[in-house]
Amino acid sequence: MASAELLLLSHAMSHETQPSHANHNTAGDTTLVSFRKSIDNIDAAIIHMLAERFRITQAVGEYKAKVTLPPADPAREKRQIERLRKLSEEADLDPEFSEKFLRFIIEEVIRHHEKAREG
Amino acid sequence: MASAELLLLSHAMSHETQPSHANHNTAGDTTLVSFRKSIDNIDAAIIHMLAERFRITQAVGEYKAKVTLPPADPAREKRQIERLRKLSEEADLDPEFSEKFLRFIIEEVIRHHEKAREG
Repeated sequence: MASAELLLLSHAMSHETQPSHANHNTAGDTTLVSFRKSIDNIDAAIIHMLAERFRITQAVGEYKAKVTLPPADPAREKRQIERLRKLSEEADLDPEFSEKFLRFIIEEVIRHHEKAREG
Repeated sequence: MASAELLLLSHAMSHETQPSHANHNTAGDTTLVSFRKSIDNIDAAIIHMLAERFRITQAVGEYKAKVTLPPADPAREKRQIERLRKLSEEADLDPEFSEKFLRFIIEEVIRHHEKAREG
């Protein structure tokens, strides 16, 4: 038996009073509903943070075009990644993920800047 | 001449008193430094939000294993994406980006859950 199956079996055995997956109604599961409300609140906060971040990077893009600076700044990006990795470690977040996350955001910012230059 | 070059030329012509790119010191540029401080503050806030989000999804993963629910829930994901797209529009954020962002986060959550099941 694979370890994943064993794990599931041990969970099933230790929680025999829990409803089985087949008839488990997630919408009526107050524990899950409560977790999901917290996740939804956090997501709304992140979306608004991102909206504000893109407002600022848009202003940065306009400013850089005005003073003829290139859109990307690899030295700044390196410092940002190092800082966020450190912050992540303190917050118990995978530093690899925070780096991936920042690169994901920076790619989008550069895409915006290029689009603004073209338009 | 390409439109991007024309744009740069027009910027350069309208701001002849601005320093040129070659000798522009970004570290001493108070406008850029101020923008970057705001970006750094927002990034720190997002990293801490994400750390808390992963704490909750970890608890959700443990709970789902306990009550034998599958890690992914496509119906819930669909609702989350619709909600975040709506929130994004109100916040003037590209809804396409917010959907891409949520998928990026959910992929990481599922990766965590799978890792937890294996380990």
